[in-house]
Amino acid sequence: MMDELDKAWLEICGRRSEELTPALQSVEAFCSAFPTKQKCVLITSGGTRVPLERNAVRYIQNFSTGMRGARSAEQFLQLGYAVIFLHSKHSALPWQWNFHLDSLTDLEDHAGPGRTDKEIREEADKRLELGTEVGTFHSAISSINRFRSHTCKVEYQDLDEYLFFLRKIPEMMDKSFTVPLLYLAAAVSDFHIPWEELLEHKIQSSDGGLNLHLKPVPKFLRCLRAWTPKALIVGFKLETDEDSLRQKAQKSMEKYDLDAVVANELGTRYAKVLLMRRQGFKTLEILDKNLEKIPTECLEEQIVGEVNVLLTEKVLTTTQSETTVH
Amino acid sequence: MMDELDKAWLEICGRRSEELTPALQSVEAFCSAFPTKQKCVLITSGGTRVPLERNAVRYIQNFSTGMRGARSAEQFLQLGYAVIFLHSKHSALPWQWNFHLDSLTDLEDHAGPGRTDKEIREEADKRLELGTEVGTFHSAISSINRFRSHTCKVEYQDLDEYLFFLRKIPEMMDKSFTVPLLYLAAAVSDFHIPWEELLEHKIQSSDGGLNLHLKPVPKFLRCLRAWTPKALIVGFKLETDEDSLRQKAQKSMEKYDLDAVVANELGTRYAKVLLMRRQGFKTLEILDKNLEKIPTECLEEQIVGEVNVLLTEKVLTTTQSETTVH
Repeated sequence: MMDELDKAWLEICGRRSEELTPALQSVEAFCSAFPTKQKCVLITSGGTRVPLERNAVRYIQNFSTGMRGARSAEQFLQLGYAVIFLHSKHSALPWQWNFHLDSLTDLEDHAGPGRTDKEIREEADKRLELGTEVGTFHSAISSINRFRSHTCKVEYQDLDEYLFFLRKIPEMMDKSFTVPLLYLAAAVSDFHIPWEELLEHKIQSSDGGLNLHLKPVPKFLRCLRAWTPKALIVGFKLETDEDSLRQKAQKSMEKYDLDAVVANELGTRYAKVLLMRRQGFKTLEILDKNLEKIPTECLEEQIVGEVNVLLTEKVLTTTQSETTVH
Repeated sequence: MMDELDKAWLEICGRRSEELTPALQSVEAFCSAFPTKQKCVLITSGGTRVPLERNAVRYIQNFSTGMRGARSAEQFLQLGYAVIFLHSKHSALPWQWNFHLDSLTDLEDHAGPGRTDKEIREEADKRLELGTEVGTFHSAISSINRFRSHTCKVEYQDLDEYLFFLRKIPEMMDKSFTVPLLYLAAAVSDFHIPWEELLEHKIQSSDGGLNLHLKPVPKFLRCLRAWTPKALIVGFKLETDEDSLRQKAQKSMEKYDLDAVVANELGTRYAKVLLMRRQGFKTLEILDKNLEKIPTECLEEQIVGEVNVLLTEKVLTTTQSETTVH
């Protein structure tokens, strides 16, 4: 099983190895800057895409804003973690997620017509100094600066890039840290067209339409325990139906040998999640039930808090057993 | 033919009408602020996406950075045009395209570790004041402000939203202006799954894969002449093979009754295009042949310059024939 998955991994990612290795070197340098006991988390965030042709203009994209990952990263950083943030292009970044163009547009509206450049700049400065809103430009810059030494960002876009890093980074972390933490919030494609089939994949049908045959992406989640035996692994499960959520999370935890699963329903995901652990499940939710907007109250604070407890326990168990052996 | 296309348009877009109409009202207010003789262009930019399920997480995305559209908009604005900029989410915006997050990241790098917030802010101010690079934050804000009254941005994401605006905005422009200009730079999906088929579109195949059947999107480009009889219409053709480019552009111009077609090849598109017009074709290219980066020399200046000549001629012909009739 593992051999087959290893082979499948190489078929999908091997082609990209040379090009992606430099990014790994910066991860290696990042890891080596910390002691073995440093708490270090790999957060995967955003969505993957798969090309539908070799000279690709068309892709199937798994949509994800990356808000969960970005806000979780902020929480981990505040708890003192070293954070490797593996994110898709255009997805949210820690401290920066409310500046996706909007900062400029906002400033644009605020500056008003007919003002001089000097007036606009003064207005911008004044707003930065007020700093009353959470996540203004000023406080974002300040947080980025504060946590710079503990943050390592790696960008991916296509599935093969994501899968390359999903193996290589945990392997590296396993060498560097007592108990590495994998926090897998990214929305990963279930189906793809293998590279060798990409040239002839488009079949024109009789009505002038297009038939696409996509193959299932092998379940590499199953490999993570082998790639990083010492890790605490937290998976994510997103469903559109709340009823079966608990059973599915439970099943996923067992099947892939995960330490915990964060299960959420599409419509309520920023207000409520189930945290499934080996010792049973726990509901985490916030008070602000207005689902129209992303709440300022931060559900990720609770999720990350719980995960941190799990990690602390596992570190304790690991070091105790090491002490016993020696 | 037209009746069929009208029906197809309604099937695809009708569902979204109520939700999208408010955006149209702002376009209407924008148009009515100008005299009939005002030069006004609709620029479509970016790529469309089509959902693969109703409760959609997966989409087929036509990728486009929107650089062509954004840079063309800047040129039209500088020539005094009123610009309706119909763009996809995350695609480039006029004056803002080099601030897609990069401004913040750049500032982040520049601020350096260990500096105080005050020092970071002073550094930012200093860089804004230097203003030596094209498109710094400062000059972008200044340009946005300068052209605010002549810019109307409308955002789309899915194909149905795009097609709704592609009809409604030109119809509105046709009432408001002597010769409206349509400049169709967006990368539009060729295939989609109709809404009524979305529930049952996924067929699990014997190997656990997925079979998707996509239908061709009707060629609404054919309708534009009927929707906006007075317009000058400029289409775009992107090919990966340069050899057949001229023939294809010519064919496209005739088939859809376009006034001009900008034809470009994927690899060289920022350095060279063919402009196909009724009176023959013309090659436009820039001197900087470094294709690794987006050149500072602006090919869009040439394209928009040529299109402006065509529009000026058509306005002249139109007003002369009107004078003759009266």
